[in-house]
Amino acid sequence: MQKPSLAKGTRDFGPDKTRKRKYIINTIERIFKKYQFNAIETPAIENLSVLMGKYGDEGDKLLFKIINSGDFLKKTSLDDYHGGADAMIPKISEKGLRYDLTVPFARFVVMNQNEINFPFKRYQIQPVWRADRPQKGRYREFYQCDADIVGSKSIWNEIELTLLIHEVFENLQLHDFSLKVNHREVLYTMAEFSEMQGKETEFCVELDKLDKVGFEKVLEGLTENGANSEKVKQIMEIINASSSDIDKIENLKNLTGNEEAYLEIENYLTQLKTFESKGHQFKVNIDFSLARGLSYYTGMIFEVKPTTVKMGSICGGGRYDNLTGVFGLKDVSGVGISFGLDRIYDVLDELNKFPQETSKTTDLLITHFDNKSLENGMLVLDYLRKQDINVELYPEVTKIKKQITYANKENIPFVITIGEEEIQSGLYSLKNMKTGEQTKIKLEEIPSKLG
Amino acid sequence: MQKPSLAKGTRDFGPDKTRKRKYIINTIERIFKKYQFNAIETPAIENLSVLMGKYGDEGDKLLFKIINSGDFLKKTSLDDYHGGADAMIPKISEKGLRYDLTVPFARFVVMNQNEINFPFKRYQIQPVWRADRPQKGRYREFYQCDADIVGSKSIWNEIELTLLIHEVFENLQLHDFSLKVNHREVLYTMAEFSEMQGKETEFCVELDKLDKVGFEKVLEGLTENGANSEKVKQIMEIINASSSDIDKIENLKNLTGNEEAYLEIENYLTQLKTFESKGHQFKVNIDFSLARGLSYYTGMIFEVKPTTVKMGSICGGGRYDNLTGVFGLKDVSGVGISFGLDRIYDVLDELNKFPQETSKTTDLLITHFDNKSLENGMLVLDYLRKQDINVELYPEVTKIKKQITYANKENIPFVITIGEEEIQSGLYSLKNMKTGEQTKIKLEEIPSKLG
Repeated sequence: MQKPSLAKGTRDFGPDKTRKRKYIINTIERIFKKYQFNAIETPAIENLSVLMGKYGDEGDKLLFKIINSGDFLKKTSLDDYHGGADAMIPKISEKGLRYDLTVPFARFVVMNQNEINFPFKRYQIQPVWRADRPQKGRYREFYQCDADIVGSKSIWNEIELTLLIHEVFENLQLHDFSLKVNHREVLYTMAEFSEMQGKETEFCVELDKLDKVGFEKVLEGLTENGANSEKVKQIMEIINASSSDIDKIENLKNLTGNEEAYLEIENYLTQLKTFESKGHQFKVNIDFSLARGLSYYTGMIFEVKPTTVKMGSICGGGRYDNLTGVFGLKDVSGVGISFGLDRIYDVLDELNKFPQETSKTTDLLITHFDNKSLENGMLVLDYLRKQDINVELYPEVTKIKKQITYANKENIPFVITIGEEEIQSGLYSLKNMKTGEQTKIKLEEIPSKLG
Repeated sequence: MQKPSLAKGTRDFGPDKTRKRKYIINTIERIFKKYQFNAIETPAIENLSVLMGKYGDEGDKLLFKIINSGDFLKKTSLDDYHGGADAMIPKISEKGLRYDLTVPFARFVVMNQNEINFPFKRYQIQPVWRADRPQKGRYREFYQCDADIVGSKSIWNEIELTLLIHEVFENLQLHDFSLKVNHREVLYTMAEFSEMQGKETEFCVELDKLDKVGFEKVLEGLTENGANSEKVKQIMEIINASSSDIDKIENLKNLTGNEEAYLEIENYLTQLKTFESKGHQFKVNIDFSLARGLSYYTGMIFEVKPTTVKMGSICGGGRYDNLTGVFGLKDVSGVGISFGLDRIYDVLDELNKFPQETSKTTDLLITHFDNKSLENGMLVLDYLRKQDINVELYPEVTKIKKQITYANKENIPFVITIGEEEIQSGLYSLKNMKTGEQTKIKLEEIPSKLG
């Protein structure tokens, strides 16, 4: 006998969790469609040549790799075997599991560039896999919900995504969040001022830790990477000041002297003001320490965090100017965001924000005494189903008590029980399971008595 | 430069195909929910201990296997390497990709048996993976849409699934199909009469070929397997006769002499008659040569084929009495069906049965001359979106011609163009792209003029 188990870092979702997950997905998808994004789907299995080298060395390690079919050792030699895992992998595995939705999307755009009508707005809601060490809130299989616009450099796209993010979270009744924004060029200007030209990535990596490790540690890290600590302190003073976003930009601009780098984020804020004048309310905050790890971002970057629950980012994204370049298609600028289903689930769960509609929706259970009344029950079910009643028939002939227990466990609010008398008279006893109240009524009267 | 490619046997789905696929999935899911099935989801990655040995030797070979993370060679020896693929696999791979939805469901039931409220009706719509040789209509990644009822032996469940199958295909406007049914016990009775006791599986495998290879070949195959050819001919005469289903059952029963084996299928047909008397129409045909490959079926079996398109089965299923037994839970009888999304797609496509709603639904494109009119366009978009109009704003400042080309390629039926004059006057020129007709109207009048 085998004791069945789940693979490490994976999860089953029973009826209750699946309904709640579908509620989140359906809400996000509804807004994606309202904003006229087009759904696409890409396969779970991709050639490793598409995936490798796109997520850094660490990412390459975290890719789930699939063993070639058949005699997968045939391309290997004894030398490869002695060479260890790294030498063997390329000989025995050509395919891997999707690691995110962005690289497959870039591949899709390049392979379909002649059919795509640019600017192209696409959304994609699919699972991704990472061989990360599982821990609380981190799974090896999880869903991403991505929306991207490619083939347009206009800041309007960033505004569109900002509106979309607000509409999604409003629809999920998640009102307490902050949308942090920054701009990669502003970060690079700060890096340059700190005398870290050519080490912009290192600058971003260190600065990104500000939230977690505090100013002293960040300063230490930056200095170790060659920054001028006095100049870093000047930047930090402005970033940490309690002044307005606009003032911070002005002060940074004066300090770093590279006005052009600030134009886009300024334009973005100006456009938001216009929408505010039309009644929109935004939860946008500039966070000059926001860097986001992914190396492909080149412009505006976004990150959403809930403000009343301790949780990492539940949505993030940004502009990239050369995502498809690696696959041979230059000059396709794009901007995109990704919602993390699993974390949004945890936040809504903690805040108790799942609506009633995510509970099971059976209104009525039909119970019965014997085969003959079960058969009558089938026809009663058929009639009520045609009236759009959410109705179930207990499928087995068994004790009434067992049938009622089923109704109670499923929280079904009404029950009718069919026996010889009901079949003869055509009058059914409808029981309200909460109040215990019973009424004898005709079949046709049942729909109006439910709910 | 890398030329990107898809992994063999996998597919991308662009916007048009994805909308159509979602239409099929949404239709099936809506009916599953109407019949009060509960959605669950299981992970794509399962332990190989769960999957191996459940689909026969051939199935074991077709499982996609994932290389263990890290130094995956550490459990192997040089002997294993010289032992070849079969010796290496168990040492370097512990996980594989889901091969169907049934075995993971059996695992789910066993692992959650204390929380599940039996009888349990579950549905599951997820992709599965098989390392089959790709060919027309056969992919390595494809969707299954399963509905099962476990924990009930009543024939009512088979009736329920029969009603559901009809309702799904009616809702998909696929009216020309045949639901073939048979019963494993009837097949075993026929095997016994043919003197193939103990070789029931072989009997089923040979008989199942009747459609493809014809009577003579089947007779040959059965005789080679030890059947009494005279007795097989007697059975075939009844099966191939043009008599009614009821008559065939009577004749077979008289021939094989095992009345009990026929009780359930007779009861099933009787119940359908009752529903027919209430106005239901069924496309059910008994096919005594229907065997279905899967070894776990023990009772009624189902298969749906379209009748006006050359295509294999688009839906199939049956009753199994011991699916969870292999995981240690005895006596859980169940019955289930599985819809094949990809084949249903191909059938609907060939019959041109996708409704208008599966086309892109943008009603209006906002075009503009310059930055200022693009900014005005954002507010026009915002207003119209609040009126539930499916509206897009061309996001880039570019030539009007390019914007109009975009609208034409996307089949967007209406366009407005914003310039200095429109901003000043508040009157927008709405162009019907089919008729070429243009009307100058106020913003508030636009919604009523679309469609």
